[in-house]
Amino acid sequence: MTLGIGLLGCGTVGGALVGLIDAQPDLEIRQVAVRSTTKARSAGVSSDLLTTDAHAVVARSDVDIVVEVIGGIEPARSLIIEALEAGKPVATANKELIANYGAELLALAEAKGVDLQFEAAVAGAIPIIRALRASLGGETIHRIAGIVNGTTNYILTKMTEEGASYGDALAEAQHLGFAERDPTADVEGFDAGAKAAIMASIAFGADVVAGDVFHEGISNITSTDIDFANRLGYQIKLLAIAEQFDANGDGPSIGVRVHPAMVPDSHPLASVRESFNAVFVEGDSSGELMFYGRGAGGEPTASAVLGDVLDAAAALRRGGHRPMPLAQRLPIKPIDDLPSAFCVNLQVTDAPGVLAQVAGALGENDVSVRVMEQHDIAGEEAGTARLIFITHVAPERQLRRTLAAFDKLAVVKAIDSVLRVLGE
Amino acid sequence: MTLGIGLLGCGTVGGALVGLIDAQPDLEIRQVAVRSTTKARSAGVSSDLLTTDAHAVVARSDVDIVVEVIGGIEPARSLIIEALEAGKPVATANKELIANYGAELLALAEAKGVDLQFEAAVAGAIPIIRALRASLGGETIHRIAGIVNGTTNYILTKMTEEGASYGDALAEAQHLGFAERDPTADVEGFDAGAKAAIMASIAFGADVVAGDVFHEGISNITSTDIDFANRLGYQIKLLAIAEQFDANGDGPSIGVRVHPAMVPDSHPLASVRESFNAVFVEGDSSGELMFYGRGAGGEPTASAVLGDVLDAAAALRRGGHRPMPLAQRLPIKPIDDLPSAFCVNLQVTDAPGVLAQVAGALGENDVSVRVMEQHDIAGEEAGTARLIFITHVAPERQLRRTLAAFDKLAVVKAIDSVLRVLGE
Repeated sequence: MTLGIGLLGCGTVGGALVGLIDAQPDLEIRQVAVRSTTKARSAGVSSDLLTTDAHAVVARSDVDIVVEVIGGIEPARSLIIEALEAGKPVATANKELIANYGAELLALAEAKGVDLQFEAAVAGAIPIIRALRASLGGETIHRIAGIVNGTTNYILTKMTEEGASYGDALAEAQHLGFAERDPTADVEGFDAGAKAAIMASIAFGADVVAGDVFHEGISNITSTDIDFANRLGYQIKLLAIAEQFDANGDGPSIGVRVHPAMVPDSHPLASVRESFNAVFVEGDSSGELMFYGRGAGGEPTASAVLGDVLDAAAALRRGGHRPMPLAQRLPIKPIDDLPSAFCVNLQVTDAPGVLAQVAGALGENDVSVRVMEQHDIAGEEAGTARLIFITHVAPERQLRRTLAAFDKLAVVKAIDSVLRVLGE
Repeated sequence: MTLGIGLLGCGTVGGALVGLIDAQPDLEIRQVAVRSTTKARSAGVSSDLLTTDAHAVVARSDVDIVVEVIGGIEPARSLIIEALEAGKPVATANKELIANYGAELLALAEAKGVDLQFEAAVAGAIPIIRALRASLGGETIHRIAGIVNGTTNYILTKMTEEGASYGDALAEAQHLGFAERDPTADVEGFDAGAKAAIMASIAFGADVVAGDVFHEGISNITSTDIDFANRLGYQIKLLAIAEQFDANGDGPSIGVRVHPAMVPDSHPLASVRESFNAVFVEGDSSGELMFYGRGAGGEPTASAVLGDVLDAAAALRRGGHRPMPLAQRLPIKPIDDLPSAFCVNLQVTDAPGVLAQVAGALGENDVSVRVMEQHDIAGEEAGTARLIFITHVAPERQLRRTLAAFDKLAVVKAIDSVLRVLGE
């Protein structure tokens, strides 16, 4: 039984997908909706298939499965709703849409008894959504920490391995097509934040949207930060972190955030280089798992969409679908309440008693220190030393109060950097 | 609708699984088959559930899904056949059984329209089977290279990081319970070979059994080998490799093998330490993917079995199953025909013209050299030098002929080691 595919969008991903679907014996593309039927398409996309009427593609009686690779909220959202309303399963690569309207669309899919799948929306070819839904469906997930933005990982890799400045590394990434001319969505963590929202939704069965995610980007990371981190045995990575906190009286709550973090060299995420992505999952029984691969690009993304299409096809053939309700609305902790270890880099007066004052500010705010180093500062004014310490895990609020206390100490000349540290 | 589980076996994995299944709202363990009902069981396993009659557990009308964690061929094989004949889906962690009778059992499951799942048979908690079946179901897989035996990876890690000898590292692994008193199955590659057969079967849709797999273990790896490999920028790992070769006239063929290999430090497999497992997959569209996690242990293995049970439960609820035929019997290339790069470590006479003779033997056998280093040998007899080179990829046959030619050269005093190199 050949199943008909209606393809919405035919850019890089759509073009790659046409070839992959053509190679499947039981699938056939019935029509491809595009904005312009005269624009040049990649080889293999027959112009006979093209139309500008996406709604008509969804409605065709010989289209059994709808694939959406247009991106953005509209018209993608309306088209997916039309497909689901018509009882047609949907595979989409649309991160922005799922991160904002995922719960609503999944509820509609559930009500209609059809599949809505979006493996490609997070980390390209890496099958993290299916792993969380199926393999780890019965697992209590404690934490997910992922490198889910290839652009920023590329920039951080160049800064680390070639000593490049942030600006030079960004320019190189732009030159090579890894970064957009306006890189804001990548470097400020918006893209990773949307993916964090989707991963948190699936892992915790909750409705988490992009706007729920705290995010801080990499544009303030300097070569000096990277240098210090490397010397202490860490790599700086932009992490998307989703955590579930144990119920204590008030029921469970979660934390979802994106920020640069120091990752210990011995941690599997530390060796994820260039534009690769990886997602590290800590489950109650499974223990530590990591999923690594290409997070972007036409072919890898199309490969993930194809997996979803084959799944939807198998479900259509046997009837039924696999439910994925995101019914809960779990409380989301504000960043102030989220626990981290921190690495703080201070310039202090090089005199007796300074350490006691700094330690006093830490103690008053219940922040304890795991490791501290003091260095002379070569080539700078005499009488100044550098104090670097890594704290034990504490809520951000306490660290911010500590920093405010440092600001008031005359012996603290400058707070050069504060970085969160992955661990424990 | 609560579904009834019949559990066959209640050792480390079975004991952990009881707790996990008890935590699922819609699953209930009806009975647990064990060899002795008087032996002490882990907490949470009610003695009321125990029986020594495994056949009766399979046959119970209130058992909807059969879980087999006995291990070994019989009685596991007969019990699984009974379950499938009765139309009951089966989840098993039995690597040995699937590596030898997988195709036969899957054909029976197919004929009966029920699921036979075995995620836990390869790499414990890592969802590699589901990734290959579902997410990458439409992908052309070129190669899978995995660290799938935790014992040998632990031993190699200790040898690398602590300079331990093979014997000392093995003894430590035995002391910590990572290695059996008779470690043959692990250290000689039989365990990894069975897993390679299963991965090759699923990735290539072929019937590959454990006996098809070439295997060479780690018991001949010395600290010196590791030292040289590290200095050249490589880690030595025991790899299970399954490859598919492009059809050229004769149709496609595959290679399946287990042996130690030098893995470049920059490769994601190089940083897989201790008893962790990881499987690296190279797909046509997906590109490079890696799946990392705990390959053994009661809880991680039980977590993988639980994923299969939930999948089977979902399929039972909606009717139907996902077929996984291993119908093809693809030609399996003998090790002599399989391509590798090699690192060869020779003791040679330190005199002019030696390099020309060695290079001549390589050239006559069509083996080309990618990199070569010559070292003086400190503390040994004068007039001897060490020659280390890494070849380009060539079939093993050509390398063996080259080594035979070296043996006949008077200037080659000893072939100290030959190691395959992962790459290209």
